[in-house]
Amino acid sequence: MSIPTSAAPPTRPHDPLKEPARRWFESLRERICNAFEAIEGAPGAAVEAPPGRFVASSWRRPTAPGEADGGGGEMRVMRGRVFEKVGVNVSTVWGAFSPEFAAQIPGAAADPRFWASGISLVAHLWSPHVPAAHMNTRLIVTTEGWFAGGADLTPMWPESAAAKDDAGLFHAALRAACERHDAAYYPRFKEWCDRYFFLPHRNEPRGLGGIFYDHLFTGNAEADFAFTRDVGEAFLEAYPRIVRRRMAAPWSAAERHHQLVRRGRYVEFNLLHDRGTLFGLKTGGNIEAILMSLPPEVRWP
Amino acid sequence: MSIPTSAAPPTRPHDPLKEPARRWFESLRERICNAFEAIEGAPGAAVEAPPGRFVASSWRRPTAPGEADGGGGEMRVMRGRVFEKVGVNVSTVWGAFSPEFAAQIPGAAADPRFWASGISLVAHLWSPHVPAAHMNTRLIVTTEGWFAGGADLTPMWPESAAAKDDAGLFHAALRAACERHDAAYYPRFKEWCDRYFFLPHRNEPRGLGGIFYDHLFTGNAEADFAFTRDVGEAFLEAYPRIVRRRMAAPWSAAERHHQLVRRGRYVEFNLLHDRGTLFGLKTGGNIEAILMSLPPEVRWP
Repeated sequence: MSIPTSAAPPTRPHDPLKEPARRWFESLRERICNAFEAIEGAPGAAVEAPPGRFVASSWRRPTAPGEADGGGGEMRVMRGRVFEKVGVNVSTVWGAFSPEFAAQIPGAAADPRFWASGISLVAHLWSPHVPAAHMNTRLIVTTEGWFAGGADLTPMWPESAAAKDDAGLFHAALRAACERHDAAYYPRFKEWCDRYFFLPHRNEPRGLGGIFYDHLFTGNAEADFAFTRDVGEAFLEAYPRIVRRRMAAPWSAAERHHQLVRRGRYVEFNLLHDRGTLFGLKTGGNIEAILMSLPPEVRWP
Repeated sequence: MSIPTSAAPPTRPHDPLKEPARRWFESLRERICNAFEAIEGAPGAAVEAPPGRFVASSWRRPTAPGEADGGGGEMRVMRGRVFEKVGVNVSTVWGAFSPEFAAQIPGAAADPRFWASGISLVAHLWSPHVPAAHMNTRLIVTTEGWFAGGADLTPMWPESAAAKDDAGLFHAALRAACERHDAAYYPRFKEWCDRYFFLPHRNEPRGLGGIFYDHLFTGNAEADFAFTRDVGEAFLEAYPRIVRRRMAAPWSAAERHHQLVRRGRYVEFNLLHDRGTLFGLKTGGNIEAILMSLPPEVRWP
């Protein structure tokens, strides 16, 4: 037995997944954008306008002094005839957290360096009969590494039979994704979602939920990545189906008004409670990308 | 010389002002509502509708177990043809702060009991050419006592000559109110307002400012009350004049769109940064009264 005189630097379990994860978030983005553009081209759009197309804009993360490059991202926004405003962002960024934030991030207290990649999506539809939706998944690497993400559905009349039916389809897809990996995931991540997407100041949920998970590292990073991919695939399978089956139904001015008022709750949640939004704003993230989640038109009558 | 064997309980300097302050806030409210209703009845309203009238609704502060009464307030809201949505709230409440909040409030750490009375107003106009406005003044009594308040103006094109002219009139009235009391007040309270009504995430001010003051106790509570009255009077003198001179100008759809986008900044400030809003929401205040400040229609395009 001999003591090695040289060795490769230690590889942490998430390091080999950085590049595959980045590529996968980007490929999911492509497929989601294609699915949404196909919906725009389908018959039945309730607003008279040409089919919408995504418009892309890229941004670079502002670098700290001495930092050569901090990564960046690409926002894609579509303002269409079915989707009033839908944003799909991917970003891959790296650098060092400020001391204040490093203290709050797992594995960053002693070494503030981080690498993060992810996709996030928020869709607001013209029709009040189509639920709004949110999805995001990401990989974060500090001295620790973990996957995180979730998806949730926000119908405008959460008590209605149609909304419950949509939520049933949405939850079934997410449940199936969870159950391919761990029987405990769905109940645990569904409950986490219900707890997270809640407006305490109104004592009401944001919508009909979905799943939410954070800081997931089971010890098998490959398996956690596979689960995260399945969450993205479940969203891609379920949400376009919900849009297609509701988009052609006509609506009244009163129903549209109700939708605009319900959207006010969405704004209240995102600006008062959403940790991602507040984290992004406080760490100097890209304002347009962070606030892309806000609905295009809102009323507080 | 003899030691008194009985004495009235000690009277703190703000105790005798509670009732006069409450009455004054209510009388200011009456005069402001009358001035705004008179504007609704004046010729030149740019929206075709009957003149608006204030609609009142009162609320009681929820009482803690063992508490007989915690006071309450009255909201008055007018949705008119000049004022798209204007709310004028008065409230007079008392009780005990939760331990968490008592620690943050001057004079409440050892004894959490408080008494508070005040008026608050936010006006959003149909016309993009009329600045939005905010005003509030209040008296807070714990083991300490102080007046606080301010007023600020939010034009939609803060760089325009018209906006600067309106701000000039508004600031002149507030400056005159300040200078009747202390030459240092206006520069100090103007700077405080600029610092407070600022959106750090966009690195931009909310509007063209005004004055802001908190925890004012000079040692002469009567004088502080007189100053606070003058602030309210200055607002009543200046703002209706600004509304009247701008309300009749026609506007384009593009100008209205710009206004709705600028209102998004107002929402961002109130939900992300405004201490009064966040304090109210976290202490279980009346949701409708707290969020009455949010604009009736907003766009994040």
